[in-house]
Amino acid sequence: MNFPSKLIEDAVNEISRLPGIGKKTALRLALHLLKQKENVTEALSQTLLKMRTEIKYCNVCHNISDSEVCSICTSARRDRRTICVVEEIPDVLAIENTSQYTGLYHVLGGVISPIQGIGPDELRIESLFSRISNATENDKVEEVILALPATMEGDTTCFYITRKLKEYGVKVSTIARGIPIGGELEYTDEVTLGRSILTRVNYSAD
Amino acid sequence: MNFPSKLIEDAVNEISRLPGIGKKTALRLALHLLKQKENVTEALSQTLLKMRTEIKYCNVCHNISDSEVCSICTSARRDRRTICVVEEIPDVLAIENTSQYTGLYHVLGGVISPIQGIGPDELRIESLFSRISNATENDKVEEVILALPATMEGDTTCFYITRKLKEYGVKVSTIARGIPIGGELEYTDEVTLGRSILTRVNYSAD
Repeated sequence: MNFPSKLIEDAVNEISRLPGIGKKTALRLALHLLKQKENVTEALSQTLLKMRTEIKYCNVCHNISDSEVCSICTSARRDRRTICVVEEIPDVLAIENTSQYTGLYHVLGGVISPIQGIGPDELRIESLFSRISNATENDKVEEVILALPATMEGDTTCFYITRKLKEYGVKVSTIARGIPIGGELEYTDEVTLGRSILTRVNYSAD
Repeated sequence: MNFPSKLIEDAVNEISRLPGIGKKTALRLALHLLKQKENVTEALSQTLLKMRTEIKYCNVCHNISDSEVCSICTSARRDRRTICVVEEIPDVLAIENTSQYTGLYHVLGGVISPIQGIGPDELRIESLFSRISNATENDKVEEVILALPATMEGDTTCFYITRKLKEYGVKVSTIARGIPIGGELEYTDEVTLGRSILTRVNYSAD
């Protein structure tokens, strides 16, 4: 692609480094910014920079946060006896948006993957165990919910954590796998459908 | 959507003001930037700001430019006898990328639209006429190519410019409309197909 201006070429190159944004979309975004008032671009640039330089990660659950300990970990309204273990930060947001969970979180920062050379030490697994063992009598962790991806790596991580958690006497559960609500049986992949039959639950008509 | 941090919420709000980017994509982009080194965000912010504040518009053709007159208008290798009239800046880039056109451009900045209250005075039409009348004997404009959208507004603009150009004795042409190369007859809309039959061209087997 030829550009009539070095300035716009640089901008397009920078924007198209973002995931899922190609040169054409980048050009469209750059031209859009040119059409807007200068303060629109100023606000965008400064907000991004501020976010990148000032954001903190919670010392307890490793979620993004504005302070040393995040608002979920400090909240008095959350159930401190339950910890939900997730792979990445977006997973926390996804679960929060369901409004169905009131416990705490623990962000691993990945899953165990021998192929990519990611072992337990590369993840924040040790800090999960120390959270559980250091909890005071009032905040005793009673259940760890594993909300990890349904992949080989996710399963390996679940297995590893479950084995290790045995010595702490904590109940371990995993989120339900099955056919999505509104999903059609005939379009569900065989693995999910097969598992959903094997792991069927008691039905009550109450 | 709930956000665990005000900083990321602000960033998502700013990013999602861009066209075609919703909250979910904005969040994905913000989290991507958080995963990268700080200088990635720094480069992005500064390049955008630099582009927005330093970019110029060519005094002659109104295309984006790094200087007062753009590289196309100053190029000695361009055919100065032909001016291609387009609606917006991306149209220049699109035509440039075909490598089929060696003349100059003129960016109107829109098309005549009575409904939206855009008349000839809101566009850079007068400056097109003064370009033509002020041209020196060597740079005399011989042809104006209208490459405007095939809409009611585009047609109105074509009609207006053509009428006005009569007094300058300049040849006026419009880009060919028809079935795209590789396009299938049966999937072409009736208007295009009908017009492509009416405006058929002589076929030579040479």
